[in-house]
Amino acid sequence: MPASENIPPLALPFVSERAKKLLDLVEKFVDEECIPADVVYSSQIGMGDARWHGHPSIMDDLKKKARALGIWNMFLPKNHFKDGPQFTNVEYGLIAEQLGKSITASEACNCAAPDTGNMEVIARYGSPAQKERWLKPLLAGEIRSGFLMTEPDIASSDGSNIKLRVERRGDHYLLNGSKWWSSGAGDDRCKIFIVMGKSDPNNPDKYRQQSMLLVPSDTPGIKVHRMLSVFGYDDAPHGHGHITFDNVKVPLDALILGEGRGNEIMQGRLGPGRIHHAMRAVGAAEKALEWLINRLNDERKIPFGKQLSEHGVLLDWVAKARIEIDASRLVVLNAAVKIDQKDAKFALKEIAEAKVKVPQMALEVIDRAIQVHGAMGVCQDTPLAHMWAHLRTLRIADGPDEAHLNQLGRRENKTRKDEIRARIARQQAKTEEIFRSMGLDRNELGAAKFKAKL
Amino acid sequence: MPASENIPPLALPFVSERAKKLLDLVEKFVDEECIPADVVYSSQIGMGDARWHGHPSIMDDLKKKARALGIWNMFLPKNHFKDGPQFTNVEYGLIAEQLGKSITASEACNCAAPDTGNMEVIARYGSPAQKERWLKPLLAGEIRSGFLMTEPDIASSDGSNIKLRVERRGDHYLLNGSKWWSSGAGDDRCKIFIVMGKSDPNNPDKYRQQSMLLVPSDTPGIKVHRMLSVFGYDDAPHGHGHITFDNVKVPLDALILGEGRGNEIMQGRLGPGRIHHAMRAVGAAEKALEWLINRLNDERKIPFGKQLSEHGVLLDWVAKARIEIDASRLVVLNAAVKIDQKDAKFALKEIAEAKVKVPQMALEVIDRAIQVHGAMGVCQDTPLAHMWAHLRTLRIADGPDEAHLNQLGRRENKTRKDEIRARIARQQAKTEEIFRSMGLDRNELGAAKFKAKL
Amino acid sequence: MPASENIPPLALPFVSERAKKLLDLVEKFVDEECIPADVVYSSQIGMGDARWHGHPSIMDDLKKKARALGIWNMFLPKNHFKDGPQFTNVEYGLIAEQLGKSITASEACNCAAPDTGNMEVIARYGSPAQKERWLKPLLAGEIRSGFLMTEPDIASSDGSNIKLRVERRGDHYLLNGSKWWSSGAGDDRCKIFIVMGKSDPNNPDKYRQQSMLLVPSDTPGIKVHRMLSVFGYDDAPHGHGHITFDNVKVPLDALILGEGRGNEIMQGRLGPGRIHHAMRAVGAAEKALEWLINRLNDERKIPFGKQLSEHGVLLDWVAKARIEIDASRLVVLNAAVKIDQKDAKFALKEIAEAKVKVPQMALEVIDRAIQVHGAMGVCQDTPLAHMWAHLRTLRIADGPDEAHLNQLGRRENKTRKDEIRARIARQQAKTEEIFRSMGLDRNELGAAKFKAKL
Amino acid sequence: MPASENIPPLALPFVSERAKKLLDLVEKFVDEECIPADVVYSSQIGMGDARWHGHPSIMDDLKKKARALGIWNMFLPKNHFKDGPQFTNVEYGLIAEQLGKSITASEACNCAAPDTGNMEVIARYGSPAQKERWLKPLLAGEIRSGFLMTEPDIASSDGSNIKLRVERRGDHYLLNGSKWWSSGAGDDRCKIFIVMGKSDPNNPDKYRQQSMLLVPSDTPGIKVHRMLSVFGYDDAPHGHGHITFDNVKVPLDALILGEGRGNEIMQGRLGPGRIHHAMRAVGAAEKALEWLINRLNDERKIPFGKQLSEHGVLLDWVAKARIEIDASRLVVLNAAVKIDQKDAKFALKEIAEAKVKVPQMALEVIDRAIQVHGAMGVCQDTPLAHMWAHLRTLRIADGPDEAHLNQLGRRENKTRKDEIRARIARQQAKTEEIFRSMGLDRNELGAAKFKAKL
Repeated sequence: MPASENIPPLALPFVSERAKKLLDLVEKFVDEECIPADVVYSSQIGMGDARWHGHPSIMDDLKKKARALGIWNMFLPKNHFKDGPQFTNVEYGLIAEQLGKSITASEACNCAAPDTGNMEVIARYGSPAQKERWLKPLLAGEIRSGFLMTEPDIASSDGSNIKLRVERRGDHYLLNGSKWWSSGAGDDRCKIFIVMGKSDPNNPDKYRQQSMLLVPSDTPGIKVHRMLSVFGYDDAPHGHGHITFDNVKVPLDALILGEGRGNEIMQGRLGPGRIHHAMRAVGAAEKALEWLINRLNDERKIPFGKQLSEHGVLLDWVAKARIEIDASRLVVLNAAVKIDQKDAKFALKEIAEAKVKVPQMALEVIDRAIQVHGAMGVCQDTPLAHMWAHLRTLRIADGPDEAHLNQLGRRENKTRKDEIRARIARQQAKTEEIFRSMGLDRNELGAAKFKAKL
Repeated sequence: MPASENIPPLALPFVSERAKKLLDLVEKFVDEECIPADVVYSSQIGMGDARWHGHPSIMDDLKKKARALGIWNMFLPKNHFKDGPQFTNVEYGLIAEQLGKSITASEACNCAAPDTGNMEVIARYGSPAQKERWLKPLLAGEIRSGFLMTEPDIASSDGSNIKLRVERRGDHYLLNGSKWWSSGAGDDRCKIFIVMGKSDPNNPDKYRQQSMLLVPSDTPGIKVHRMLSVFGYDDAPHGHGHITFDNVKVPLDALILGEGRGNEIMQGRLGPGRIHHAMRAVGAAEKALEWLINRLNDERKIPFGKQLSEHGVLLDWVAKARIEIDASRLVVLNAAVKIDQKDAKFALKEIAEAKVKVPQMALEVIDRAIQVHGAMGVCQDTPLAHMWAHLRTLRIADGPDEAHLNQLGRRENKTRKDEIRARIARQQAKTEEIFRSMGLDRNELGAAKFKAKL
Repeated sequence: MPASENIPPLALPFVSERAKKLLDLVEKFVDEECIPADVVYSSQIGMGDARWHGHPSIMDDLKKKARALGIWNMFLPKNHFKDGPQFTNVEYGLIAEQLGKSITASEACNCAAPDTGNMEVIARYGSPAQKERWLKPLLAGEIRSGFLMTEPDIASSDGSNIKLRVERRGDHYLLNGSKWWSSGAGDDRCKIFIVMGKSDPNNPDKYRQQSMLLVPSDTPGIKVHRMLSVFGYDDAPHGHGHITFDNVKVPLDALILGEGRGNEIMQGRLGPGRIHHAMRAVGAAEKALEWLINRLNDERKIPFGKQLSEHGVLLDWVAKARIEIDASRLVVLNAAVKIDQKDAKFALKEIAEAKVKVPQMALEVIDRAIQVHGAMGVCQDTPLAHMWAHLRTLRIADGPDEAHLNQLGRRENKTRKDEIRARIARQQAKTEEIFRSMGLDRNELGAAKFKAKL
Repeated sequence: MPASENIPPLALPFVSERAKKLLDLVEKFVDEECIPADVVYSSQIGMGDARWHGHPSIMDDLKKKARALGIWNMFLPKNHFKDGPQFTNVEYGLIAEQLGKSITASEACNCAAPDTGNMEVIARYGSPAQKERWLKPLLAGEIRSGFLMTEPDIASSDGSNIKLRVERRGDHYLLNGSKWWSSGAGDDRCKIFIVMGKSDPNNPDKYRQQSMLLVPSDTPGIKVHRMLSVFGYDDAPHGHGHITFDNVKVPLDALILGEGRGNEIMQGRLGPGRIHHAMRAVGAAEKALEWLINRLNDERKIPFGKQLSEHGVLLDWVAKARIEIDASRLVVLNAAVKIDQKDAKFALKEIAEAKVKVPQMALEVIDRAIQVHGAMGVCQDTPLAHMWAHLRTLRIADGPDEAHLNQLGRRENKTRKDEIRARIARQQAKTEEIFRSMGLDRNELGAAKFKAKL
């Protein structure tokens, strides 16, 4: 059954025929080209230091095929970028789900993070010159980019803590500080960093202290110290860099949008990105469920004389995965509709719901798929362990679950408490009034006995 | 914010303006009339044996108001009953959510189980005479009804185990056996039972052995032994009866649809009913969240010098409740759309998902609302404990969660395994082919060392 | 296998031969006398208002038997009461586990709350006159007692919030205020209340503001308004009372220990009581597991052609219950040993662990036993639903789980943070020293590449 | 506070003064020597292929120190090996907990798996010649060993599925087949494999078909193909090997104990090993909790203006970790006592409880410690991610959780069902008898009304 026929009924009104066709094309490309290429890609990265030199040639093959199929740069959102493919967030969300099933697919279609968010930032907020110089080669898939936000030694869930110093000195800015978890920084093709820094530390509005700049990755003074691992995975060739800025000079036109507007850009960047991440995670969970079912029906695995698919506990896992994947997909698509209606800010609550729910769901499904595979599940012989490690970071990236839950809870409490308290008080008063008007007493347990005694 | 503005964006295309208006009317009626009446209703039931005689007069007041407002019999589904209010399952689902916030609202609007399912059965499958005699007063809210399916001493999750014997004897049927959990059987107004029995125990097709009959509750030979409690609640005046049939005679025209067609009627009856139950449970969870927030902001409750709404753990509960209630609502509405597209059988998977997910979610939200209220939460001073006990039965009624999970898992495994196994095998073959065509070896950890040694 | 042979090996050194013999005697009494009497007891309570008059005669029969067997007042702790049976908390804990399997057993052996805690209070802190008047008939099982601590409208998890006013007026104290959840207050035999009140509201030490008094339940001005339900159960004939004190006068010698020492008495009272509650909960969980296994092997319950005991999910529940019951028992016994070594204060951490863990565990086991029974599980036909409702209150009584978790976490953090931070810092410094002394560099991912480039 | 003062009170009677002294010595060694060496060890392994050549020199330093301190080969159990240090399983369990806090400690003390289990096997079942040749250098820490049990392509949770063929051919055995997850096989120092194979495939007793042999790792025909990763960790220099046996010849005296006795040896080997694994996991969880607390009090991490230790949710995590670590330790020690009383077979249930409970608990604690560290938690900058990955394999190794739960549940059901069913039936009969003897009727809800009507 093609993906377009598996769209949840509730989402169907939001998906155009054009998007359905492309969705099926992407599904087929992922299924037939990307997933088979994933293992080759991993092998081509090589061993030891070689992993950080060059990149697997099969990626270039895939990119050519994707461009030829017209499944390229699909992420550019309808309501923000008129030159793009004009898909809504719902439509691209469904496409992203398919991309999430392969480690090569997103990049092959030029839809990989952090490039997608970076391209959006330049497209929405960049000057014509910035677009010419950086957006063009990014859209062409010729270069890649990094997004340098997170810093060591601070509580990164609160963006106002950013410390990397951006100082205006005559005709240039001077950058000093350090960044880590700069994903993509290990890649030879990564030519440009979008850097978030603190330009106005004394501004009383702590959300106006930050600025964002476009900094070429080969600017003198930038030092990539080392790469960070994710549960043992180095994620070469992109990697996650730990970087120092030591008196890094960039011209004034490196600034995006304006001084003090870093936080504003940030907010716009995160919303749709979270939808992409979440839908890729839904795709990963679907893939894990497929591997789980594949294993259940492996005729060589007959512990205690019964095929795995006859073990009730494991069928339970299939059912629970089915329920929670389907629920999660609806939650993300509902958030996507709301972004499409207006913007990410309007969908704050719905995005937060997706941000928290989906990775936890996907991790549980993948963990069970691993468990069903036994030792095979934790090693390189299935895509599961790597998927798990990657998904685990989604509970931390762009703010840990706990920060989002706290904000979501606080917001729900704050916006609703007055109305709720008034309503319940009003209802209780009405109840009393009915009792009075009817001349009734409340019937209470034991009241008869104790009243009699009094 | 009226309920019509709170409809999930994803569901909006499925809700007519007419339904939105009625939804808001129902919300207002529940909020302003029913919830304040709930406590009065409970008090009017009385104590001891009085609980089983008559019914609270306030219910009659509410019914009059509901009829006057035109919010009556709203459950009759668009695609099955042309004389009804013509709402889709999505639309009525949203209405049912509001009804789920009050113990009196469903009956007040003549939308209470088991009458709703019973009316549907008679409307769809009943003869003109059956409709005249039973459907008419039911639709008018003049009588109530019971649905007698569950039996003691058998595994009721498997309908084919039904034992109550239905034998044709000339011009009548003879019924012998016992039923329990016959909800509504305690009520003086309950005049008619729909009884599922075994009419053809030797039929090789075990789903053709059952027949359904309309049996007046005062037929000689019917004995209501006792009422069953749900936790400590007796749910008077309706109650849950334990009933024996001892040579009960009914005329041949008591049969619905035809001999051996009981199971077929049953299947049609359960689908939409599960949507109603699930959406009422969503409403109950919303109400519990409201009570939770109400309590968090109670100025009299300041343990350890901090108001409850400042305790991080409790805000977390609010957020998690928000996420899971919203996810559950989408799951139910998605199932409702699918029923609306065709019928309940077509939506088997989606209904099962809702059936399992929603009550578990609601129980957790209610349990946390109870916990936040401390001792007050378990007693009669909030609606929470009773709501919890009622919701707990939904994990059992119409088949326990485990039976549904097992069927859902088994079905997913069965329908998808061949395609999945073929696909993964095909992908792996393609991978090998790429390796061969590129003349590459897989890079494996340690391979360099051990190959060198060999 | 008798209970004495089921004592966890780890606990065996702490159990005397004398205690083992008594344990087996109690087990046999509970098994053969109390559990069969439970249903009779419930029936004898009657219906409606009759439930609050008198008490089931079978209780008196059981008491006679228990006294004759010498299994009476076993709770009096070795290290606090020299005239008692001299059991340690470990020993009595094991006995309490057996008592927890029956609703009649604790009272039958005169080991029921709140009498046990009340007797301990009078035994430890009471004057000779107070002992003569109240302790004697309590030890003889002739009267019963209440413990009036919890109040409506305050956050009861924080004892310093108590509001019931105790004022010294010449030769008497005057009491004004209200109490609820006064368990036992419905019982005709309940003759004495231990009342916690605020005698010195301006004392700067907020734990010296409270006093405890012995107040006869028939003192003028005391009004029992109504009884509170627990998930629909009224727990007659004892019940949970809502009581008002309106200018209640008691003589000065009603005071226990001294003014301002209420909190001190309270602390001593709660420790061992929590062990008793926890071990009874372990017994309840064991009983639920027995009912679960009983049901799994019911030959009449064969859903989908397979006996319940062949369903893998259900065997999983048996196993998980086994693990968690056994773990919980060890946690409680470990706390009991620590109390026996010194006192409850010394075992604060261990008691808190038991207080939080055990009820949650027991509720999960019981909930699963209910689920396996289907609809039968929620009604009066098994002991499960009532056990669940009772156990649910343990997550609230004597402070909700959240308060205990918060204190436990805060305490662990506070007492250990300095040592932990110093240790980890020291270890990291040592690591650096080794690197230096060996002349080594850290190997970091990607470092070779980026160093080469710099 | 030294470890000897932190022994759970319940376990104290089982720990000798001599063991307490050694425990404190080990704790100090782990704290001051091993943990600081862990990072150095990881660095010394190097990058790329170098990881599989040689081993970190710091390990040799640690080994020298451990021998000098007399904390060497502590694992040899009291009841099985008279020349060892004569510790009970309880005592060594407490020591293993300390070893579990460092990646170098177990090997440094010559207490690392799989050598420990292998040495036990040779000590208990080996011939004098086998002991001389292999046990001696193993006890001296001069060589290391592998245990080759698990095979690809079969359900390894059921040992009877083993396929590696062992055929007797005159004066030698011929081995053909493959093994994987042969831990330690990557290490240059690994000289001897204990190999489980199928020697008698037609034996009607499927637990007599297996034999165990001592096979030098350099025997011709043995090929280590590749190393398997655990999540992204290769665990060099030991590694987890995938190995083929192609007509591997070993002399007849390579056989351990006797033909067909492989399964018997296996059972003896697993019991105490599971205790070791479980107690190391408890140590790992304690270490994770320390890192969690360390992070909570990091003054640089102040998200949203509040130090992490003030966030209620995180204090909750500390408390829950405290409870579950302490419960788990008691479960393991209780199993250890039972092994000490007799043997592993006698403690089957208790060992299974520890086997399932402890890794799940430790994974949850570590996962939360990771979450509190944010991105830092998943990378190489804390020991947490690697600990998690390692612990995750414990839910699979020696049989997946589900197999153990199934067996535990099945066993509990089987051994107890008859007694339980008889007991409950007897209690119910007694209840009926009491009703009869008292001339009472059961009071049932609603009975009064319906009886009146009948």
